[in-house]
Amino acid sequence: MPIDYKKELENTARNTIFVHDPDLLIKMIVRMVVSKARLTHASFFLFNKEKQGYQLMAAQGALLKKIPLGLVCIDKDDVLIRFFKEHKSNFIFGREALLIGEAKLALANTKLKAQARRQLAQVVYQMELLEAQVCIPSYFRDELLGLLLLGGKNSGRKFIDEELDFFVALNSNVAMAIRNAQLFKELQYELDRKHQLFIRTTVALAAAIEAKDHYTHGHTSRVANLSIEIAARMATKSRKDLDAKFLENLHISSLLHDIGKIGIPEYILNKRGPLTVGERNRIKEHPMIGVNILKSIKELEGAVAGVKYHHERFDGKGYPEGLKAEAIPLVASIITVADSFDAMSTDRPYHSALSKTEAINEIRNLKGKQFCPQVADVFLELCQEGKI
Amino acid sequence: MPIDYKKELENTARNTIFVHDPDLLIKMIVRMVVSKARLTHASFFLFNKEKQGYQLMAAQGALLKKIPLGLVCIDKDDVLIRFFKEHKSNFIFGREALLIGEAKLALANTKLKAQARRQLAQVVYQMELLEAQVCIPSYFRDELLGLLLLGGKNSGRKFIDEELDFFVALNSNVAMAIRNAQLFKELQYELDRKHQLFIRTTVALAAAIEAKDHYTHGHTSRVANLSIEIAARMATKSRKDLDAKFLENLHISSLLHDIGKIGIPEYILNKRGPLTVGERNRIKEHPMIGVNILKSIKELEGAVAGVKYHHERFDGKGYPEGLKAEAIPLVASIITVADSFDAMSTDRPYHSALSKTEAINEIRNLKGKQFCPQVADVFLELCQEGKI
Repeated sequence: MPIDYKKELENTARNTIFVHDPDLLIKMIVRMVVSKARLTHASFFLFNKEKQGYQLMAAQGALLKKIPLGLVCIDKDDVLIRFFKEHKSNFIFGREALLIGEAKLALANTKLKAQARRQLAQVVYQMELLEAQVCIPSYFRDELLGLLLLGGKNSGRKFIDEELDFFVALNSNVAMAIRNAQLFKELQYELDRKHQLFIRTTVALAAAIEAKDHYTHGHTSRVANLSIEIAARMATKSRKDLDAKFLENLHISSLLHDIGKIGIPEYILNKRGPLTVGERNRIKEHPMIGVNILKSIKELEGAVAGVKYHHERFDGKGYPEGLKAEAIPLVASIITVADSFDAMSTDRPYHSALSKTEAINEIRNLKGKQFCPQVADVFLELCQEGKI
Repeated sequence: MPIDYKKELENTARNTIFVHDPDLLIKMIVRMVVSKARLTHASFFLFNKEKQGYQLMAAQGALLKKIPLGLVCIDKDDVLIRFFKEHKSNFIFGREALLIGEAKLALANTKLKAQARRQLAQVVYQMELLEAQVCIPSYFRDELLGLLLLGGKNSGRKFIDEELDFFVALNSNVAMAIRNAQLFKELQYELDRKHQLFIRTTVALAAAIEAKDHYTHGHTSRVANLSIEIAARMATKSRKDLDAKFLENLHISSLLHDIGKIGIPEYILNKRGPLTVGERNRIKEHPMIGVNILKSIKELEGAVAGVKYHHERFDGKGYPEGLKAEAIPLVASIITVADSFDAMSTDRPYHSALSKTEAINEIRNLKGKQFCPQVADVFLELCQEGKI
């Protein structure tokens, strides 16, 4: 009797290599096994390091629907687990898969030693509790990664050797896929952690530099948040250039936009009276000081434009280069609106804060003069919706 | 006739999932195929995006030893590649594998249309050039990832259907393993890139902050390098706590150790004359200012100790907490030696530089007083070897 579902299940198992979420992967496999091999039910227990046990990750079929996933956990020293860790199934039955029927027959054998009998009886009891007809271990390099438990066949027929061999082979592929998925997850986690570390350190250092400028407390993070909000809205307006890379560059750039202020003497930054022309010119150096600080960092190439050009004006009257209109990189035009709005609506040495409405009006009035009209429109749209 | 090498090769292919270097993986497979299936030779061509062609990645066996790897590349529009991209082998011979013998027989068939004949003749010519008896495509989701080319059998016998089917299945597993390895490599690359970004940005910002202190140009990176050098030497002396994590924390910590100076007024940092007690006390605040800047960053927990305690002294007379001896975290004790050596050997507002020998002598004299003896000894050892 050939196994008609073999090819299909093999293909599924093979493709699981690209499912990098262990949970999802196990659910897929259990579901496929139950439906393709026409079983009453099946379940999968995966080793969980924190819990030091084998946790139920997937259960499929009528009988197992009532079991709450995640709550069921077999202790790592449980008799069933030890049975497979010690490869007892191999030693007694000559194969990795354990059938409850065979185990019961073995118990009837008078030659079985007392200790082995006791262990096997406990294993059978445990399998009955878990409603398993067949138990298939998932080994990965001799380590027991998990257990696949099968109910009976819908047809009521017995499992044949070929099927059992097939399930063992399948489960060995699944073990590899799980291990692979776990490795991916760890690497992905490491990547997220590193990204967070980078962002948080940049925020902390930018905030520290900003703290020298007594009037701009919290300015950097407000500008960063507002910039991202504007860009996210623009991205919904079918602008394909506003991809994840653009948003990341904008985020970094908005955090670092005033970093060059570190090079401006404290007495100028905190001067209460009006600035002289010379002092004003010193302040205008901060975008280029920022560029000089960051220019050697290859990975920041895409973010430096925002630092350099966030004081350009749409009409070309800005600094440092006097760029006009579309010549100004979008990342800078967005920061300009966010930066100006925040500067206007907070107290500064040279002016007291405008009300929010006044600041919004200023953005409207200077649209096409100081500000890129496209960016200003999106900003005003967000204001109208009460999102700013 | 059963294939006796089947199981072994299957196991190898399965384990390649954990070889995350595509080059190595392909070399392993080609070597195993040649030795286990007893072939004269075999080779593998992998699609290379930059080269827009299929590059020779591995060649095994007498005939192919002379081919320089990496230099041989089949263009993506080559007739052999197009043949497999269009799944011609499937259409003509009913299987993915193409045998040169079968192709020659097909050419003798008078019913073959002129265009198909022309293509097949070119394919045969190309296979002869590449000394391939059998050509097996590696598809991944319908995309041609690579080609496995086999020479003949050592025995001179023909390939049987079962073998060809097996090689096709094997190669499909290899394709998955290659794709998986490529994904891992990309993720790993992304992780390295992110790490570099973090380190470089931290270096740049630390340097910018340091630039305010006119006398300490390059101080931060010199302290970081020296700290890592000391720790690396200590790690060779069977100190198990000096693992990769420790070194990473030390690196970050040494880069950020003086970050708190951002909170000290410029006039104090750059004062030419002697400091008043009040000014001195202000400067002593910099470790705790640094801690405050960084304390909210969970990922920096391990690094903050170095920032906080790099002015503690082994005899307990340091600041901010007056910790003694072993109570001072090792990461801080290392930075203290590196920081002090660099401070002594460069000009500062309050002293001119000592010579290198004088600075080294100071470290020796203050061992057990200012400096942790264990760290100082390693530092002196490196000096003696001319490494500092």
